[in-house]
Amino acid sequence: MTGTGRTVGVVGLGLVGGSLAQALLARDVHVVATTRDPATRADAADAGVTVVDDVDAVVGEADLVVLAVPVPALDAQLARVGAALAAHGVAPTVTDVGSVKAPVAAAAARSLPDAAVFVPGHPMAGTEHAGWGAADPRLFEGRRWALAVDAPVDLGRWADVAALAVAVGAEVVPVGAAAHDAAVALVSHLPYALAATSAAMLADDPDADLAAALAAGSFADLTRVAGGHPTLGPDMATANAAALADRLDDAASRLAALARSLAGGTPPVEEAFGAGRRGRAVLDAAHAAEATPTSARLDRAGLAALGRRGGRVVAAHPTGLGAAEVEVTVVDPGAER
Amino acid sequence: MTGTGRTVGVVGLGLVGGSLAQALLARDVHVVATTRDPATRADAADAGVTVVDDVDAVVGEADLVVLAVPVPALDAQLARVGAALAAHGVAPTVTDVGSVKAPVAAAAARSLPDAAVFVPGHPMAGTEHAGWGAADPRLFEGRRWALAVDAPVDLGRWADVAALAVAVGAEVVPVGAAAHDAAVALVSHLPYALAATSAAMLADDPDADLAAALAAGSFADLTRVAGGHPTLGPDMATANAAALADRLDDAASRLAALARSLAGGTPPVEEAFGAGRRGRAVLDAAHAAEATPTSARLDRAGLAALGRRGGRVVAAHPTGLGAAEVEVTVVDPGAER
Repeated sequence: MTGTGRTVGVVGLGLVGGSLAQALLARDVHVVATTRDPATRADAADAGVTVVDDVDAVVGEADLVVLAVPVPALDAQLARVGAALAAHGVAPTVTDVGSVKAPVAAAAARSLPDAAVFVPGHPMAGTEHAGWGAADPRLFEGRRWALAVDAPVDLGRWADVAALAVAVGAEVVPVGAAAHDAAVALVSHLPYALAATSAAMLADDPDADLAAALAAGSFADLTRVAGGHPTLGPDMATANAAALADRLDDAASRLAALARSLAGGTPPVEEAFGAGRRGRAVLDAAHAAEATPTSARLDRAGLAALGRRGGRVVAAHPTGLGAAEVEVTVVDPGAER
Repeated sequence: MTGTGRTVGVVGLGLVGGSLAQALLARDVHVVATTRDPATRADAADAGVTVVDDVDAVVGEADLVVLAVPVPALDAQLARVGAALAAHGVAPTVTDVGSVKAPVAAAAARSLPDAAVFVPGHPMAGTEHAGWGAADPRLFEGRRWALAVDAPVDLGRWADVAALAVAVGAEVVPVGAAAHDAAVALVSHLPYALAATSAAMLADDPDADLAAALAAGSFADLTRVAGGHPTLGPDMATANAAALADRLDDAASRLAALARSLAGGTPPVEEAFGAGRRGRAVLDAAHAAEATPTSARLDRAGLAALGRRGGRVVAAHPTGLGAAEVEVTVVDPGAER
């Protein structure tokens, strides 16, 4: 991916798209991009991006197109991409960076002439800030980048997108789209909902000023994302509504049970907190000691299984279109268990 | 409080008691303390603390006694303090650092010959670590320190404890004990419960390893306190059971409503997240721009009202026992509204 003479197209130059463009430019990759914001167009051109008029022009010039637009805009952009693919008769690989994958994969199946060109993606990288001005070419370094492996995704194209993610510093987590959506409902969208809910409880409290004055680190940590981008939380919640609703119901019944146990005695209280300690240990383990990278040839099921046990792809080698397996280097915690 | 020749007694030399002792020693205040741990006794003596055998000895030698023991131990320590006060015929001021105030005030009323000597206190300072080894003389700098003003607390003694808190760098938030307990149930104990609950959901998830691999900053922030001291969460929850149960029920019904609204359309979703943004703004405002400090003479009701509108005492002047008012310097956001 680095300096190979290929062209990467980026649609949308906000935090994620802008960071990706800057990271690629820093690695001498040619970037062609489009965005509606005039100031961002000028800034991006100054930075070395070939700024073009629209999605059609990006599709016509790029080998790999990254749709870096908010989830609510993906449907419309996929329709434009589909029209451009049909008009140009070309077949660049297309990926996205949205926070849900099954609905986006379904939209791609509806909109693209051949859904095999589309690799649903989700870099787990973001900040409270938005826009090209907040972009950072190091945004993806050390982050996880989920890439869906479900049929009909072409594994050769999957490897190309994986190589892009690795090139900008990420580790790729192969996922099934539904498993991804259930997982991020827990680790990404539920935190937003809990942040918003707790902060709303503060706003609604008759002693809000006293409570805010007494708030220390734990409440600030809990509610931090509630103060971020105004539509990001609702957009993510709406896009992943079914999976998030399941998580919210689960959380609500656990909290109600804890409330009841507080009236009835301590053992259930200790059980709830003990389970929390176990979960935190799972999280810490997933981001701590690393297994040794190993080479592997994996098919679609093998990739999904790797992701399910917490493994990541740290290098992906070029593979022909239609390949049944990809040649990858993996970090596989399951291999050492 | 600094270098006045007075003696502060500290019962328990863990994170909070140890940090307080170190902060006072750094200000040339004589500290007499007791703790059961032999290694901590030796370390504290090396640091300049006059280490004595038991609570009785602390009460006999100190002008102001700080009970820096976990909430579950406070009942027993207050009983020992009560016995010592009766035996010595002295009347040092006594305070505590527990995370709930109404139950502790009630215990003091049961255990002490004169509950007016007891000023229920709660420094909003802590870390995930415990023990003298984790103590930090700067732990209280810039932190809020709640001090209950309810009758029968003697306001002269209240001013002495406030001066102690200010001396080690804190700002004092005057509170009613019940209002304190409701507020910390929201801003301190609910975050623990949400951290434990979310982390438990991860532990219980069949795809826990995938979810943990995809977890980024928001889930790590949310669950951080779930990995801390093993008994702190359950102890706080149990000690503040009634107020926390109310918060948990409120949170549970909000989350269940959000789950229902996700099935029914977006407006309620946006409302929930919008309320979250308002709450986060309240929090940010409480810890951002400061009003100008002003002098004030406040009685019990005036102090409680100051705290309810987010105000703090930043200096407290000595006042005789039995005073109806204290002479303080305050930061009062309500004064400029």
